[in-house]
Amino acid sequence: MSNYLKDNEVGIYALGGLGEIGKNMYCIEYLDQIFIVDCGLLFPDERLLGIDAIVPDFTHLKENENKIVGLFITHGHEDHIGGIPYLLQQVNIKKIYASGVAVELIQDKLSEIALDKPNIIEYKSNHKFKFNGITVSFVRMTHSIPDAFAICFTTPYGNIIHSGDFKFDFTPLGPATEYDKLTKIADNGTLCLLADSTNALVDGFTISEKKVYSSLRDIFDHIEGRALIATFASNLYRVQQIIDISISFKRHVAVFGRSMEKTIEIGQNAGLIKAKKDTFITADQIPMYPPEQITILCTGSQGEPLAALSRIANGTHKYIKTQPGDTVIFSSSPIPGNNAGVNKTINMLFRKGVNVITNSPLTDVHTSGHAASGELRLMQSLVKPEYFIPIHGEYRMLVAHMGIAIECGLRPDNAFVIDNGTVVAFSEDGARIAGNVHSGLTYIDGSFVGDLNSAIIKERRILSEDGMVSIVLTINERTKEIMMEPTIISRGFVYMKSSEDLTKQIANSAYYTAQAELDKQNGINQLQIKNAIITNVAKLIEDKTSRKPLIIAITMLV
Amino acid sequence: MSNYLKDNEVGIYALGGLGEIGKNMYCIEYLDQIFIVDCGLLFPDERLLGIDAIVPDFTHLKENENKIVGLFITHGHEDHIGGIPYLLQQVNIKKIYASGVAVELIQDKLSEIALDKPNIIEYKSNHKFKFNGITVSFVRMTHSIPDAFAICFTTPYGNIIHSGDFKFDFTPLGPATEYDKLTKIADNGTLCLLADSTNALVDGFTISEKKVYSSLRDIFDHIEGRALIATFASNLYRVQQIIDISISFKRHVAVFGRSMEKTIEIGQNAGLIKAKKDTFITADQIPMYPPEQITILCTGSQGEPLAALSRIANGTHKYIKTQPGDTVIFSSSPIPGNNAGVNKTINMLFRKGVNVITNSPLTDVHTSGHAASGELRLMQSLVKPEYFIPIHGEYRMLVAHMGIAIECGLRPDNAFVIDNGTVVAFSEDGARIAGNVHSGLTYIDGSFVGDLNSAIIKERRILSEDGMVSIVLTINERTKEIMMEPTIISRGFVYMKSSEDLTKQIANSAYYTAQAELDKQNGINQLQIKNAIITNVAKLIEDKTSRKPLIIAITMLV
Repeated sequence: MSNYLKDNEVGIYALGGLGEIGKNMYCIEYLDQIFIVDCGLLFPDERLLGIDAIVPDFTHLKENENKIVGLFITHGHEDHIGGIPYLLQQVNIKKIYASGVAVELIQDKLSEIALDKPNIIEYKSNHKFKFNGITVSFVRMTHSIPDAFAICFTTPYGNIIHSGDFKFDFTPLGPATEYDKLTKIADNGTLCLLADSTNALVDGFTISEKKVYSSLRDIFDHIEGRALIATFASNLYRVQQIIDISISFKRHVAVFGRSMEKTIEIGQNAGLIKAKKDTFITADQIPMYPPEQITILCTGSQGEPLAALSRIANGTHKYIKTQPGDTVIFSSSPIPGNNAGVNKTINMLFRKGVNVITNSPLTDVHTSGHAASGELRLMQSLVKPEYFIPIHGEYRMLVAHMGIAIECGLRPDNAFVIDNGTVVAFSEDGARIAGNVHSGLTYIDGSFVGDLNSAIIKERRILSEDGMVSIVLTINERTKEIMMEPTIISRGFVYMKSSEDLTKQIANSAYYTAQAELDKQNGINQLQIKNAIITNVAKLIEDKTSRKPLIIAITMLV
Repeated sequence: MSNYLKDNEVGIYALGGLGEIGKNMYCIEYLDQIFIVDCGLLFPDERLLGIDAIVPDFTHLKENENKIVGLFITHGHEDHIGGIPYLLQQVNIKKIYASGVAVELIQDKLSEIALDKPNIIEYKSNHKFKFNGITVSFVRMTHSIPDAFAICFTTPYGNIIHSGDFKFDFTPLGPATEYDKLTKIADNGTLCLLADSTNALVDGFTISEKKVYSSLRDIFDHIEGRALIATFASNLYRVQQIIDISISFKRHVAVFGRSMEKTIEIGQNAGLIKAKKDTFITADQIPMYPPEQITILCTGSQGEPLAALSRIANGTHKYIKTQPGDTVIFSSSPIPGNNAGVNKTINMLFRKGVNVITNSPLTDVHTSGHAASGELRLMQSLVKPEYFIPIHGEYRMLVAHMGIAIECGLRPDNAFVIDNGTVVAFSEDGARIAGNVHSGLTYIDGSFVGDLNSAIIKERRILSEDGMVSIVLTINERTKEIMMEPTIISRGFVYMKSSEDLTKQIANSAYYTAQAELDKQNGINQLQIKNAIITNVAKLIEDKTSRKPLIIAITMLV
């Protein structure tokens, strides 16, 4: 048994996703069985300091590897599946349960790593999987990627429903939400709901994907030249809309950007992307058609510097140059943190005389995939949970979501706004906070995973702010004399050639500090010499420049 | 004469403020006289890489120092006056013309620098200054700081009006806009308008400061505990509103944060901040009153990590700890780029169980200081310019503002959307693009100004993303032998202790590369050895880790 759950208790905890948007990973534990829901990554806020992504710390799962029943995937977005390759490097996962495009996207990820592959079990909406005391079933939901599901764990104490990411789109482009299953779960007793809090602070109802379709049609109706349109590659519905609209306006579609090309391939295999045979054209076919018969569908809706649209905007795209009459549509909203990049792209496009259309209440060329507060109220009303854990959101969103649940009739004591790692345990006696499991984060940078700790991140921050100064001293081991003038090398600090005085002062400070230390010491204590140099040089530099570069002192004994 | 203007031409150009929001600096030039309008700084987008601020490159002014008539300040915001200390370090400015609080704020800046101080001439709304062929006069405007003015340059070819930053607040808290002067300028012929484009992409009219007053009153009416309120220190009207409302609800006001304390001092001296004698209390007086009699007015509305509110939120403030029943009001909007910091502060406050109110269409606890498109149309209608240069905005805002002007009747050929440095010249024959003056930017980092070039910024970026690796080699000058194993030191790269293999490989690569070079060379060419080491080690590291740290090779000849 675990040391946090009593016999027969059902535990719920998150290893990621609480107090943040990203790296979603939730666990349901019962009778020495751990059911993992999702394994996502988080894109770092500042795209600096070289961190590519952040995934959950998997220590708890590694320590309880033998209990893991399987990894259940709600849908195929990166913040729900992006951590899988890193998880598999550390933890033996035998089975991954996923559905539809999520299966394709996971297989695509796994094809890039050389590991024993887990067994991917493709579930359908009507499947049920029985385990010891737990039955797992699925509810189809609507979201901004096809094949998004809520997952229901039927326990002896009632149903635990994990909403996955969802919105209630009443006029969806794909299959509708299975409302009947949600109410049936409620009829059988909902012990606990875990639900998506992303838009808990947004009033009303999220706009339907179908409204975006009609908005885009209206806009295409007025475009006279080429249409360039950027959107999230994973939103296959949106991609299909753009293709449909292009066909109806007799436009051919040229696709640019790796993730967009891959999505369309996956979507075609899955039957989600359909187009007449001559719809798609390649870069060299573009000149064969007049501008009003061209749609360019591309990546770069977030202003990512290397994506297709950004390259088109700054004139470095291999095939596409902007031309008068072009209209660029951002069928997207900037994710917080990406505003500057998106605005930069828009400004560059304006400079090239291109017409730019972004999402706004006037254009409606994009909509969120997440339920706003009205839909969250509907969720509470359909599912009628006895207990509630808001998930998938920053703390303020979780608190707002709790408020919504209480408005809808939840007992205030039965809402748990918790942190990653906190265990809520359920039994016949109700629910209790049962303790904590280990949780945390792992930085991903390049291929060399897991070595990047917070000390290194801190060094990068110092280096990024004031650069570094290296001081190399050669000491004659026998005579205890400094053999030549110290070598001073700096990077990212000041322009040394125009700061000869400062360089000279640093060299002098290092020299005299080292010599004083040597005179004091019996033998030679290099560490003490280096520390003394760092202390004195740091003081000198801060006095002269108000900067605090990272200082490295190296002593060479000869 | 200049090489860009013909005899008798009037030139207009910007050294900052076009294609950006910040570092505003515009010049009007006529008969060897340069009239500078504003000298601002720009806060860097990513508050990393150690850059404190960016100011215009003043080379053009330095080269034409003898032509400078004076620096005319529209209002006291940092993006209009923040560059003055750096300008004075490089260029001899004899006279600064400023009004009201701007004078106090400039004097405060100048008190911190040891330089010959320019003469500050305090202008009033009705003043006129006559120069050779040019008369300078002023129009009082409404903005988010008191004493904001448009500046009119009356030339032989008509009036050139620089709007400064403005909104048309029809129910302002301070004095109203001098509409009569604007129409009179139009009656006498507006040659060219330069106007603030910040909110050109925003529909309608900006909400009045008075609406914020009533919204704040309504909110204060419902606060039962302490009210903590953060706003922009420079908005003295807002600060006075908060004081007035506090007094009317029988609250005492404690002020925290250096800029807020300074503003209140300046505001009291200028008669703009008024309060009953016992209104302000100090930190140690707070416990003497019940919570419902306390307002805490503080800095930190932008989530700045070291500001008062951020410290209160994270529990490190010297005097103020949050307590149940506290309500925090952000009487502000996050400036793009500050969203993450503000959200972090809000999440921390939520965690402490504090009620948080932010600006939204439902709360109206803040309003912009800049004219939205409706007001920009009004400006065109009042001033009726023959030519128009949109200023103070990103490129897309300048283009939108041009569109607004054309809608209002401006001839499309008479709008100039230009870049910093572009000179527009006016004469009896009309207007023409006359060439360019030198423009650019200067990074400010610490006290050591002007040495930070783009090469250093690039080094900081590399250091911030993948850290650095130093390799030190000692070579026996006589025998051409490497004297010991190379010393490898890294920072911000990988955790070296857990990467002993990699360290060993780097040392080996450096050693054999250097030895091979030495064997090849006649004598010792250190530069060649270092370059060879850097090339080979970079390749090795990228192969093993997919990272590209900055590599420094140091050879010591002994």
